[in-house]
Amino acid sequence: MALPEGYTFRKLQLSDYETYVENLKVLTTVGEVSLESFTELLNHWQSLPELYHPYVISNVEGSVVATGMLLIERKLIHECGLVGHIEDISVSKVEQGKKLGYHMISSLTSIAQELGTYKVILDCSPENVGFYEKCGFKNSGIEMVRRF
Amino acid sequence: MALPEGYTFRKLQLSDYETYVENLKVLTTVGEVSLESFTELLNHWQSLPELYHPYVISNVEGSVVATGMLLIERKLIHECGLVGHIEDISVSKVEQGKKLGYHMISSLTSIAQELGTYKVILDCSPENVGFYEKCGFKNSGIEMVRRF
Ligand SMILES: CC(=O)N[C@@H]1[C@@H](O)[C@H](O)[C@@H](COP(=O)(O)O)O[C@@H]1O
Ligand SMILES: CC(=O)N[C@@H]1[C@@H](O)[C@H](O)[C@@H](COP(=O)(O)O)O[C@@H]1O
Repeated sequence: MALPEGYTFRKLQLSDYETYVENLKVLTTVGEVSLESFTELLNHWQSLPELYHPYVISNVEGSVVATGMLLIERKLIHECGLVGHIEDISVSKVEQGKKLGYHMISSLTSIAQELGTYKVILDCSPENVGFYEKCGFKNSGIEMVRRF
Repeated sequence: MALPEGYTFRKLQLSDYETYVENLKVLTTVGEVSLESFTELLNHWQSLPELYHPYVISNVEGSVVATGMLLIERKLIHECGLVGHIEDISVSKVEQGKKLGYHMISSLTSIAQELGTYKVILDCSPENVGFYEKCGFKNSGIEMVRRF
């Protein structure tokens, strides 16, 4: 499925600071993130390129309109298998209906498969199960949390 | 809650190779993992000490009887918050009834809290929800998977 003309799926970059932070507010609490903190975090992610794979979809103006993180975990099970965790998916409210979420999930899933993972997992709320089923995912368990 | 006398909660070490691999077979498919692969994986985990926190409980003989991994993810949300992922929990079948699983989860949760995470999450099957509730966790979502 193609992106709208002028839209790009690409790696997160430093110049995305404002629109990346803004876009993630659709998902949950973001709080104050200064340019300095963002730079430090992006440097950290980029210093671990086998592990953190932060992606965005940007629009014609170059603004971030969707976000997604692919985290690759090295395990012992499954013959020292790799697992992809899809995290922090957000799609700008004003961009809904363009299948950006679907494009983000399919792209991260393909990257995970190319990197040799045996599975990709993610946690979502019950309302979003149908969306992820359309992306080829199946219900496989319960997420449990303890907050501090 | 104390461990049985002579049992220790500690970091995974190289000499655990055989009993660590064996113990994880309670959880899922492990397959062939040579000493060489184990050494390489442990070195990798140890080279990323802020990220991978592999723990075990060993018995009087020093054999691994329970396993658990705490993975610390750096996010942008929640003011560049940290999330702890609890993974690969296994308890030896012959050691059931000694609350080793409870001890492992409580210990990993405390470590995650000390490391400054805002939450710890894990995925489990519906049968294990009650156990994790006893450990202070709450149902917070659905795990979705895509296998390759
Ligand atoms: C697939 C997806 O995007 N899942 C996200 C997860 O990645 C994110 O970290 C969490 C934040 O929730 P919180 O603010 O309650 O921690 O929400 C959702 O579970
Ligand atoms: C809390 C806990 O230990 N959860 C484990 C998870 O860490 C492990 O990676 C997975 C393996 O399942 P798989 O063999 O189907 O990938 O099983 C469970 O979900």
